[in-house]
Amino acid sequence: MTPLLRQLFDHTSSTFTYILGSNGEALIIDPVKENISQYLQLLAELNLSLKMVLDTHVHADHITGAGLLQKETGCEVGSSKESSACCGSFIFSDQEVLALGNTSIQCLFTPGHTDDSYCFYVTNPGWLFTGDTLFIRGTGRTDFQNGSAADLYDSLHNKILILPDQTTVFPGHDYKGMTSSSIAEEKNHNPRALIQEKNDFIHHMNNLKLADPKMMDVAVPANLKLGL
Amino acid sequence: MTPLLRQLFDHTSSTFTYILGSNGEALIIDPVKENISQYLQLLAELNLSLKMVLDTHVHADHITGAGLLQKETGCEVGSSKESSACCGSFIFSDQEVLALGNTSIQCLFTPGHTDDSYCFYVTNPGWLFTGDTLFIRGTGRTDFQNGSAADLYDSLHNKILILPDQTTVFPGHDYKGMTSSSIAEEKNHNPRALIQEKNDFIHHMNNLKLADPKMMDVAVPANLKLGL
Repeated sequence: MTPLLRQLFDHTSSTFTYILGSNGEALIIDPVKENISQYLQLLAELNLSLKMVLDTHVHADHITGAGLLQKETGCEVGSSKESSACCGSFIFSDQEVLALGNTSIQCLFTPGHTDDSYCFYVTNPGWLFTGDTLFIRGTGRTDFQNGSAADLYDSLHNKILILPDQTTVFPGHDYKGMTSSSIAEEKNHNPRALIQEKNDFIHHMNNLKLADPKMMDVAVPANLKLGL
Repeated sequence: MTPLLRQLFDHTSSTFTYILGSNGEALIIDPVKENISQYLQLLAELNLSLKMVLDTHVHADHITGAGLLQKETGCEVGSSKESSACCGSFIFSDQEVLALGNTSIQCLFTPGHTDDSYCFYVTNPGWLFTGDTLFIRGTGRTDFQNGSAADLYDSLHNKILILPDQTTVFPGHDYKGMTSSSIAEEKNHNPRALIQEKNDFIHHMNNLKLADPKMMDVAVPANLKLGL
C-alpha cells in the first residue's frame, strides 16, 4: 500500500518538510523547529505515532526540530555516519534501508552541498527526498560546510540521476513555487545537471558568489545539537 | 495510468495552480496571470500540449492567466454555466465530465464562496481540486460575489464531504504551508466542516469580519474577461 505523504512548506526559510506514514508509524524529514506544533497536531489527526526523524544534512538556513520532537515524543533521531551532529539515537550509513511500517527507506550518501548530505529514497512508489543535493531545476550550493562541487557532481551523476526516470523528486527547498519534479525532468532540464564535464560543473559552482544564509551562524551550531 | 500532476504556488496571492497531464494533453486549473511563462516552460519540458484551462470561480485575489494562455496557445477555456465571465470557448455545468487524454474530470457545482464556484474531481486516482470551497482545515469566505454561507454548507455536506475518504484534497489556497489533505481529514478535523447545524455555520461565516482582498477591485472586473 502506498505510504501517506504530506509536504509542508516553511515560508520563512522556504524549506520543505515531509511527513511519511505507514501502518500507523510516521517519519519526519527535515523538520523546522518553529513548526513542530503543526507537525504534532497533524500526526495526531492522522493517527500516526512518530517513529523517527531524519535530517538530510546539518542545515545552515533553519534550525532543525529533531531535538524538540525527540523530547516531546521520545521518537528516534537518525544521524548519518558522516555527520558531526551529536545526540542522535541511531546512526545510518550509505545504502542502509530503514523500516517504517510496511515501507522501506533507503539512505543514499550524496555529499556535495555539505559533506554529510543524504537523500532518502522510498523505492515503492518511487519517491526521492533530495534535501539540498537536487532542487527543481537547480542544486544546493557547495561553498560552505565542507561542501564540494566535485563531490556534488559525482553524487548527482552516480547516485541520483541514475534512478528510474519516473521517480518523483521532492526537494528540500524551492524558491519559485514548484513542489515536485521527476528524475526524467531534472536529467533533461536541470541546467546544472546538464553540465556534462565535471570541470565545467566545478567552475560553475565555484563562481556563484552567493551571500551566506542569514541564519548560518545561529543554525549550524544549533543543528549540531539537534536544534536544542 | 495515473495522470501527471504538478502543483505550483504563487507566493504573492498564496494561490495553488495545478497542471494535469494525460497522454500528451494538459489542463491548467486556476492559472495566475503573472506566472504563465513558468507554466508554458514547464509544459514544453513535460512535452504536453495545453488543451484547456479551467478556473474554479471568478477570483477576487489574483488575475487569471486563462485569457493570456488562450492567446498564446489557442487552448480552450471553460466557463461554467453559472459564471458571469465572458469569452470562454466552451460552457460546462454540474456533473459534466471533461476528457483530458485518458483521464476524466468531473465538474461539481459547489456554490458558497461565490455563486459560480466549482470543484474538479479526477475520479481515478481520486483527486479533488477544491478552489475556495474547501481549504485544508478551512473554507473560503462567503461575504462577497454573491457568496452564501447556506449554499457553502450545502455544497460541503452534499457534494464534497460525501466523496470517498481517501480522496486527496488539493485546495485553491493555503496560508500555513500545507499542500494537500484528504476528505477523511477534512471531515474529521476541519473546524468549519465539523459545525453540524446549518444555522450555526451560517452564523459563524456571517461574523468573520474579514477585510476585502487587496486585489478585489482590480481582479474581479479583469477576471470577468479572462484576465485580459
